[in-house]
Amino acid sequence: MSTQTADHTDIRATNLAAVLGHLRREAPCSRAAIAAGTGLNKATVTSIVGDLLERRLVRETQQTQNHVGRPATLLVLDGSAYATIGLEVGARGLTALGCDAAGEQILRWHRAGPGVDAGPAKTIAAVVALARRAITTVQSSGRQVLGITVGVPGLVNRDGAVVLAAGLGWTDVPLRAELAAALGRPDIPVTVDNDASLGVLAEHLYGPYAGTANLVQLTGDTGVGAGIIADGRPLAGHLGYVGEIGHLRLVPDGPACGCGRRGCLEALASLPAILEQVDGSIDDDPQHQLETLIRRADADDAAVAKVLAEAGTHLGHGIAALVNILNPEVVLLGGAYALLAGHLAPAIDKALREASIAPDAGGCTVTASTFPHTATPLGATAHALTPLTRGRLPARS
Amino acid sequence: MSTQTADHTDIRATNLAAVLGHLRREAPCSRAAIAAGTGLNKATVTSIVGDLLERRLVRETQQTQNHVGRPATLLVLDGSAYATIGLEVGARGLTALGCDAAGEQILRWHRAGPGVDAGPAKTIAAVVALARRAITTVQSSGRQVLGITVGVPGLVNRDGAVVLAAGLGWTDVPLRAELAAALGRPDIPVTVDNDASLGVLAEHLYGPYAGTANLVQLTGDTGVGAGIIADGRPLAGHLGYVGEIGHLRLVPDGPACGCGRRGCLEALASLPAILEQVDGSIDDDPQHQLETLIRRADADDAAVAKVLAEAGTHLGHGIAALVNILNPEVVLLGGAYALLAGHLAPAIDKALREASIAPDAGGCTVTASTFPHTATPLGATAHALTPLTRGRLPARS
Repeated sequence: MSTQTADHTDIRATNLAAVLGHLRREAPCSRAAIAAGTGLNKATVTSIVGDLLERRLVRETQQTQNHVGRPATLLVLDGSAYATIGLEVGARGLTALGCDAAGEQILRWHRAGPGVDAGPAKTIAAVVALARRAITTVQSSGRQVLGITVGVPGLVNRDGAVVLAAGLGWTDVPLRAELAAALGRPDIPVTVDNDASLGVLAEHLYGPYAGTANLVQLTGDTGVGAGIIADGRPLAGHLGYVGEIGHLRLVPDGPACGCGRRGCLEALASLPAILEQVDGSIDDDPQHQLETLIRRADADDAAVAKVLAEAGTHLGHGIAALVNILNPEVVLLGGAYALLAGHLAPAIDKALREASIAPDAGGCTVTASTFPHTATPLGATAHALTPLTRGRLPARS
Repeated sequence: MSTQTADHTDIRATNLAAVLGHLRREAPCSRAAIAAGTGLNKATVTSIVGDLLERRLVRETQQTQNHVGRPATLLVLDGSAYATIGLEVGARGLTALGCDAAGEQILRWHRAGPGVDAGPAKTIAAVVALARRAITTVQSSGRQVLGITVGVPGLVNRDGAVVLAAGLGWTDVPLRAELAAALGRPDIPVTVDNDASLGVLAEHLYGPYAGTANLVQLTGDTGVGAGIIADGRPLAGHLGYVGEIGHLRLVPDGPACGCGRRGCLEALASLPAILEQVDGSIDDDPQHQLETLIRRADADDAAVAKVLAEAGTHLGHGIAALVNILNPEVVLLGGAYALLAGHLAPAIDKALREASIAPDAGGCTVTASTFPHTATPLGATAHALTPLTRGRLPARS
């Protein structure tokens, strides 16, 4: 009989997701309109709306519909009683973002370090400390925390373990399990995902290209990775290892890559590779080093221009592989690439158009992300809402 | 009010698709079970089932369910009154396949030529002649033809125009429109798609890896292309140009490719490239030439083994790009690659494992397709069923 029960829970969740989806697209709307729009019967809709009202996920308005017939009480979504927390672990530090369930930002913090060489244990301790403070802040604003999602620049499997994060020097770190244990809050689900996969979620929901069905975001702050929305949905693949464009071999016997191979896109055109080509090494303060790079580029420094043009050509070839395989409508340059986009774009466009098989690069536009600093944690706050958007209601607080 | 009507038609189609989907997974089942499984109310289910019975897409059985309570009449799908026709335009000739709506094969024909140099007009005439004969054969078996889908080795846009098919020497051929006009059967929808995209559909529905959520099929008979199922759905991209892995540049300044670039995977490891490396040229009868190649490979001919090992290495690097970007669970070697799989596989596996960033190539298995000759037309018959599976009922015959 347990199968029977599970099935009924699934149906309830599917129906609840359909009601929430209808409200997201059409609100304000009546119960009758939800029933007509979803094909669910009115008793089911009334029962689901009751659950949503009780949890303050929807509220009734006094508006009436502008058509002939009896005025109906209308419903609108209300995300103000709930929040999620998104965190990014990067080579340049930790970022935390808190948003309510409607996407309104509640908090945004950045912490420098722990550095790339700190190792997983120190980083996990720093993430947990930041997450605890964020939980306290969100709760003191009267909101219930629905979940925490953490973005990492590396291969993350479906259990939230970091299989490989070359830029952080991590291998086989069971990050989700260790964070959850250290946090000690079984009421707050913790998930871990790839930073680029989370970043493209933010663009797909909140950016100027929101809703673009075939959208890619490319970042190169630590390694080079692509987050992919394909045919309207985030791409995940068999084990979760998608978008690893950084290890496309562009130059046989090219410069050594952190992965142990040679001539990878990442070794040629990641931010660390660019900084090393310009300055000969990576500083203790890469943030300051990046700012100097941008200043020199903006001042038409010839040496910097040459490095950026070469990096742009390599990025164009990497993006051409994405274009030939996925045919995206838009490729967004994220992170530091967004800040350097004006200098990278001409070489990217030229190489992309030369190396794409489809005319006009398959209609692809390459442009800068509008969230160069927060795409990953913002996408993480949206990702932590997944159980709710799939129809799993939060526990009653 | 037309929007309102369109909305209601959409809802009816969505609900009909849900009922068909439930029947496909669960049949035999009762109307009540369909209502419970889909969340639709019983009156809606009864009305939809009525439409399906009237069109002989489902039938009632006398079976009763094995549980306590009143016996219910059960429903099963019945595809025997309808058929679709799939056609493949290849460098080696034309193939036609007819299947009923349950996937049972009704006819399978192969015609040699028109050759690669015949041009679009002659090829379109040959396709139309073959399609007409197939329609007559299907109709004389008492079935209604629901649609015709044609697979082409090239870039096909969403209007069914072939933007570029380098292997056929075609540019900007409005194939769907010209086929439909020449066929003169407005009651039978004609669609055109990329051959590899159709081939992987056949594997996803009928092959030993049917249902694999992340599945790629690679073919190289004319150009080199990949058909992609990602997270359970065929990948289409912005304009329909996905899987063009053949023009990944593997060897800067390598051999000239038909696309005008150098060192593309296609120029190194397509079937024509392999035949040319072995024999110095492509025969008038490439089918016979391929059979000779296979015989020599099976007899451990050293020159052939060397060419196939090199081609396998290049294919392994091409597949690594797919693996790094898409993380498929299975990559199937289709067409001639399937017939040569035993000889290609060791070099493919070695190069793939070296060039993939994820451990163990992200869990990817590379193996031979079981439909080396018919994947594309078989996938095309399934593709022509798309309107029905999306809930658009056929016209009453």
